[in-house]
Amino acid sequence: MEIFDPGAVFNAVDLAGVLANGVLGGAVARQLRMDPVGFLVLALTSALGGGVLRDTLLQAGAPVALTNPAYLFTAIAGAFIAYAIELKGKWANRFLIVIDAVALGCWAATGTAKALVLGLEWLPAILLGVVTAVGGGMIRDIVVGRVPAIFGGNTLYATGALVAAVEMVILYGLGLQNVGMGVAIASCATLCILARRRGWKL
Amino acid sequence: MEIFDPGAVFNAVDLAGVLANGVLGGAVARQLRMDPVGFLVLALTSALGGGVLRDTLLQAGAPVALTNPAYLFTAIAGAFIAYAIELKGKWANRFLIVIDAVALGCWAATGTAKALVLGLEWLPAILLGVVTAVGGGMIRDIVVGRVPAIFGGNTLYATGALVAAVEMVILYGLGLQNVGMGVAIASCATLCILARRRGWKL
Amino acid sequence: MEIFDPGAVFNAVDLAGVLANGVLGGAVARQLRMDPVGFLVLALTSALGGGVLRDTLLQAGAPVALTNPAYLFTAIAGAFIAYAIELKGKWANRFLIVIDAVALGCWAATGTAKALVLGLEWLPAILLGVVTAVGGGMIRDIVVGRVPAIFGGNTLYATGALVAAVEMVILYGLGLQNVGMGVAIASCATLCILARRRGWKL
Repeated sequence: MEIFDPGAVFNAVDLAGVLANGVLGGAVARQLRMDPVGFLVLALTSALGGGVLRDTLLQAGAPVALTNPAYLFTAIAGAFIAYAIELKGKWANRFLIVIDAVALGCWAATGTAKALVLGLEWLPAILLGVVTAVGGGMIRDIVVGRVPAIFGGNTLYATGALVAAVEMVILYGLGLQNVGMGVAIASCATLCILARRRGWKL
Repeated sequence: MEIFDPGAVFNAVDLAGVLANGVLGGAVARQLRMDPVGFLVLALTSALGGGVLRDTLLQAGAPVALTNPAYLFTAIAGAFIAYAIELKGKWANRFLIVIDAVALGCWAATGTAKALVLGLEWLPAILLGVVTAVGGGMIRDIVVGRVPAIFGGNTLYATGALVAAVEMVILYGLGLQNVGMGVAIASCATLCILARRRGWKL
Repeated sequence: MEIFDPGAVFNAVDLAGVLANGVLGGAVARQLRMDPVGFLVLALTSALGGGVLRDTLLQAGAPVALTNPAYLFTAIAGAFIAYAIELKGKWANRFLIVIDAVALGCWAATGTAKALVLGLEWLPAILLGVVTAVGGGMIRDIVVGRVPAIFGGNTLYATGALVAAVEMVILYGLGLQNVGMGVAIASCATLCILARRRGWKL
C-alpha cells in the first residue's frame, strides 16, 4: 500500500475539472437565459467535449466520458449547481478559475500522454493534448454561436495548455510520466492565473 | 414466417424519420435562400447527423448512414422534395411534425439500445439515445449559425427524447426491447405533439 | 525504379493543398484580427479538417493527419506564412486559388478512393470524397461563426468536388485508380477556376 498515490491525485484533479467546467458551462446557459436542457448541453460539452474529441480522434475505443459514468454524473452535477445557484460572488468566481486552470494543465498532460502511449509522435501528441484541454470550451462556444474565446482577446489560455503538453512530451520521453503530470499542472495553472491577473495576452 | 415483424416496422419508422428530417432540413435551406448544395448539406445533416454522431462516439465501425446506402438515398430524396415543393400548407406541416415526433422516439430508443448492446451503462446509454434523436437538428442549427432550438424557447423536444431513452433503458433491462421501442415511440410522439399544441415548455 | 511515380505526384499535390489551405485559413484569422492561436486553429482546421472528418467517419484508425506528422508540420507552416506575410497581391491570391482548386480535386478523389477501398458503396464513397474536399473549409467557417461559403453565393466549389468524386467512382470501378486521380484533379481544377473567372454559380 502506498502512502501517496499520484494516480488518485490526478483522477481527483480530473474530476474536479469536469465539475468546474460543468459549472462554467451552466453559467453560460444562465447568461443566455436557457432552459434546463441548455444547462445540461452546455455543461456536458464544456466538461466532457475535450476528452470526447481526443478519444474520437484517437479511435482507441469509445470515449472515457461514456465508458466511465463518473464523468457524466460529475458533469451533470455541475449543471445542477449552475442551475440552482447563481455564482456571482468574487470568491466563487476565483475558485472556479483556479480549478479550471489546474484542470487545463491536467487535461493537456493526460491528452498528450494518451496520444504518446498509443504511438503518436510528439507533434500530434501535443496537438491532442491542447485539443483535450481547450476542446470542450471551444465546442461550447461554437454551439452557442460565439467565436471561441481562445482565438484572441482572452489571456494565455491555450498557451498554458501548450506549455503543459510540451512539458509532458519531454518528461514522458525521459520516463517521468507522473513528474510530467505534476509539472504540467503546476506550470499551466501558474501561467493561466498570472496571465489573468496581469492581463497578459499573445 | 411471421405475420407481424416489429423489426420491419421500426425500420420503416426509422427511414420515414430520415425522409421527414431531410425535408425539414431542406426547408431551412429554402428559408435561408440557399443553393442546391445548401439543400443537400442541411438535409443530410438533419436526417443523418444524429445517427452519425452516435456511431462515431460508439466507435463500433463506420456509421450505419454510410454502410447502408438506403439512408443516404432517403435523405437525398428529402432534399429533392424540399427543393421541388414549397411545403407551406397547414397539412403538409402537420404531417411532417407528426413523422418527426414519431422518428424522435424511434431514434432515442434505437440509440439507447445500441449503446446498451455495446456494453455502456444506463446513463451514457440515455445520453447517446438523446444525442441520436436531437443531434441531427442540433448540427444543422450550428452549421447555419443558429443557436440550436433545443436550448430553450421551443416545446418539449429534447424532453420527449429523454423520456423515450429512459423507457428504453428500463424495458431493455427487463428483456423487452421491442416493447421498449413501441412504448418509447408512442410516448415520445404523444408528448411532443401535445407539447407543441399546448405550448408546454421547460 | 520507375521514371514516373504517380503516388509521389499525388502526395506532393496533397501536401501543397495542405499548405495552401493552411495559408488560406490563416488569412481568415488575419481578416478577423485574431491572435497567433487563432491563426493556428484556423490553419489547422482549414488544412486538415476534411481529412480528419473523413478518417473519423471511416473509423479505420486514427486520422492520417495525426499519424503522419508531415501534415501537421505543413499546416503549421501555412499558419506561419499567413502570419508573417500579408498576402494581398493579385498573383499571390491567384496562386493560392489555383493550388486550392487542384487540391480540392485531389482530396475528393483520395477520399472517394479510400472509402471504396474500405468497402463502402458508391454513394457513401462520393459523399466522403466531397466531405474530404470541402470539410476543412466548412469547419473553419463554422468555427468563426460564418455560414459555410459552400452553401450558396460562391462559385462551383462543392460541385467541382462532386464531379471529381463521381469520376473517381467510375474509374476506380474500371481498375484505373491512378487515371482517376489525374482526371479528377484536372477536371475539378478546370471547373473551379473557370467558374471563379466567369462567376458560374448553381
